[in-house]
Amino acid sequence: MNGLQQIDTLIEAKWIIPIEPAEVVLNQHAIAIDKGIIQDILPASEASLRYQAKQTITLNDHALIPGLINLHTHAAMTLMRGFADDIPLMAWLNQRIWPTENQHVNAQFVLDGTQLACAEMIKGGVTCFNDMYFFPKSCAEAAIGSGMRAAIGMVVIDFPTAYASDADDYLAKGLDLRDQYQHPLLSFCFAPHAPYTVSDKTFRNILTYAEQLDTPIHTHLHETQDEIRISLESTGMRPIERLQQLGLLSPNLIAVHMTHLTDHEIKLVHQYGCSIAHCPSSNMKLASGLAPVAPVLNQGINVGLGTDGAASNNRLDMFEEMRLAALLAKATSGRADALPAHQALKMATLNGANALGLGEITGSLIRGKAADITAVDFTGLNLAPCYDPASHLVYTASREQVSHVWVNGRMLLHEKELMTLNPVELQYRTAYWQERIAATSKN
Amino acid sequence: MNGLQQIDTLIEAKWIIPIEPAEVVLNQHAIAIDKGIIQDILPASEASLRYQAKQTITLNDHALIPGLINLHTHAAMTLMRGFADDIPLMAWLNQRIWPTENQHVNAQFVLDGTQLACAEMIKGGVTCFNDMYFFPKSCAEAAIGSGMRAAIGMVVIDFPTAYASDADDYLAKGLDLRDQYQHPLLSFCFAPHAPYTVSDKTFRNILTYAEQLDTPIHTHLHETQDEIRISLESTGMRPIERLQQLGLLSPNLIAVHMTHLTDHEIKLVHQYGCSIAHCPSSNMKLASGLAPVAPVLNQGINVGLGTDGAASNNRLDMFEEMRLAALLAKATSGRADALPAHQALKMATLNGANALGLGEITGSLIRGKAADITAVDFTGLNLAPCYDPASHLVYTASREQVSHVWVNGRMLLHEKELMTLNPVELQYRTAYWQERIAATSKN
Repeated sequence: MNGLQQIDTLIEAKWIIPIEPAEVVLNQHAIAIDKGIIQDILPASEASLRYQAKQTITLNDHALIPGLINLHTHAAMTLMRGFADDIPLMAWLNQRIWPTENQHVNAQFVLDGTQLACAEMIKGGVTCFNDMYFFPKSCAEAAIGSGMRAAIGMVVIDFPTAYASDADDYLAKGLDLRDQYQHPLLSFCFAPHAPYTVSDKTFRNILTYAEQLDTPIHTHLHETQDEIRISLESTGMRPIERLQQLGLLSPNLIAVHMTHLTDHEIKLVHQYGCSIAHCPSSNMKLASGLAPVAPVLNQGINVGLGTDGAASNNRLDMFEEMRLAALLAKATSGRADALPAHQALKMATLNGANALGLGEITGSLIRGKAADITAVDFTGLNLAPCYDPASHLVYTASREQVSHVWVNGRMLLHEKELMTLNPVELQYRTAYWQERIAATSKN
Repeated sequence: MNGLQQIDTLIEAKWIIPIEPAEVVLNQHAIAIDKGIIQDILPASEASLRYQAKQTITLNDHALIPGLINLHTHAAMTLMRGFADDIPLMAWLNQRIWPTENQHVNAQFVLDGTQLACAEMIKGGVTCFNDMYFFPKSCAEAAIGSGMRAAIGMVVIDFPTAYASDADDYLAKGLDLRDQYQHPLLSFCFAPHAPYTVSDKTFRNILTYAEQLDTPIHTHLHETQDEIRISLESTGMRPIERLQQLGLLSPNLIAVHMTHLTDHEIKLVHQYGCSIAHCPSSNMKLASGLAPVAPVLNQGINVGLGTDGAASNNRLDMFEEMRLAALLAKATSGRADALPAHQALKMATLNGANALGLGEITGSLIRGKAADITAVDFTGLNLAPCYDPASHLVYTASREQVSHVWVNGRMLLHEKELMTLNPVELQYRTAYWQERIAATSKN
């Protein structure tokens, strides 16, 4: 007995940006991890005097940040990455995406597509994703297999697909899945697709369950002007107003996109404590609109970041979303100091965790939280010189600089190599689906 | 004698996107290069029957595109990368950038900073850059040393710096430099800094020389609302109007930024045949404004892309600018089909070359042009599946997928390794400057 505390892992790094406390950069510190939990963060020089680790990882030119949280995606749509670009939104959906989904999407498609997404996200420093897609059981299986944390969407939509016949069937399947999977990496959200595809009755049903189970509700909201126009024509209300009347606005609501908001609506969203999933790449690529992120943040609303699916991005790259969110907020507000780097990092981590109800578990590097950690290598010439690592993470670094990723203390990426997924197998499965999708789209 | 034509290099690739003819993707083709010049582009299966190359490079999973052309940068400012972020524009200039430049910028600074920039640009597939900075001789030396093509700015500004004492001195030094360097990789532009830093008299002087020498004029124009306001206050004219009156508007003008334009001004720019250097990252990061790229392109104006300097970007990454330009045009025009992928590729290559008067030499992969070529490796999972390589280059690929770069047929990047620059030496020189700049900025 040498008096040292036995732990599983010690990670020493040049910088640690814990997100909590806010805007702190720790120099030459270490994270002590045991049984998947962060036990301590302390100066590296003290760590070796206090802890004896089974494994010590020394990252001399790296920054450690909380694992990134992708607050909105349709993971399996990686298989349609770049399949339909530069096309107006309705043609994109009606002529390309929906017909392809109708023809191809099944449990195997979702399993293969989500595995590909997990590989991409892990390589890009993402440790947790909030998914909305058909056959969510396959998504759960892919997430568990990859070792990622995931919030599985219990998707509901008021029309039949290969997955479910009607709203009740969707809901029953989602709830069954939730009962079936009690896994430390998984949580669940109700995922009614959008105001224009879900009836009042279905929203009310979902709300009843969500309140009973204290479960987040994840839905597209105010994505486009067309959505708002259609809602006004059919209900006389803007979608947010309709959801307010239905009782949906609450801290459990994760409203995705929110590109078109009046000042009154921004106040309303804040008043009800809803979270927003901001998806700048997707909003810009589909020409949905420029989300008023600076006023939304000024109001104090909890805003996380999402990639959306790879058919409208075309990357599941949270570094890109951080950079773009920061640039877009500056450009649209006319203030170069809007959305500074530390805030972008918090949006991509802690804000996402809080939106998902996972704020006690992940999203920052503090004692007692799960060891969900991303290491970024600052060695390359593209990151030189470095005056401020937080700024570099947002404006200069790419996902390609991510070197290591841990979830629950388990290493999923080591020196840029995937530890839980087989790239050769993923390429093989992807090629299989590409061939099928490309063949039918030519007819 | 086997009847085969002897050439230096044959590059076979899965795809070639030559830019000319427009929107073409050639499958399994090869480029035959001799004495730095593209001799032929033909199906790979025919190439081996026609040519005997000293060196054959087979790139089975790659796309070849013309080397990217960075139409506006201040290369040496890499040494101030991330030095002053999230700060309002005037504070950024007055309190951070200009004091630092006054204290540190000299010939050695520009040499070291431009070498670092060349390394970053080569690794990112850039083969040519249009520079505007002090001590342009150092920029010329760095470009030649790295093997890159460069348009060297003969910078003129109406206040003294360590480089020159007054407008005449700047101009004389620039013209001397131009006389001194007759190098196949170099061309020159007059580079009056901006309307608010250059007097009518100086603009007139420059115009006289530019017409005599048929040389492009590279200047910042309509970057911010403040610039326009100040011009209206001091001259009663908007900057474009003033330059029109001075006779500056012509096909030789490369107008950088152009974020604030009336419909009349867009017509004027087209009528005079000016080119625009669009810098989306910099415009957004400094909150300068959202350039009206879609209407500008619709008008038929020649628009290239630039990174601006690394102090306001913070990357010299033309892949990022292509993606951002495409997304921004869609978002601001409300049309998802605005600025499609092939057009973004053309902006980043041929349009830049045409703006610089180098359209006969570079910017597309056709017979008789210099072999300025970038290869992008599509192997990784992040680029799978691939339905359309042009779309992937703009929306999905990163500069990290650039594997090979040639300028004038000389290989500057081989399997992601720099062939002409020493990364260790660059890191050493960068650390030297970082230490000095960081030390003084704390005072």
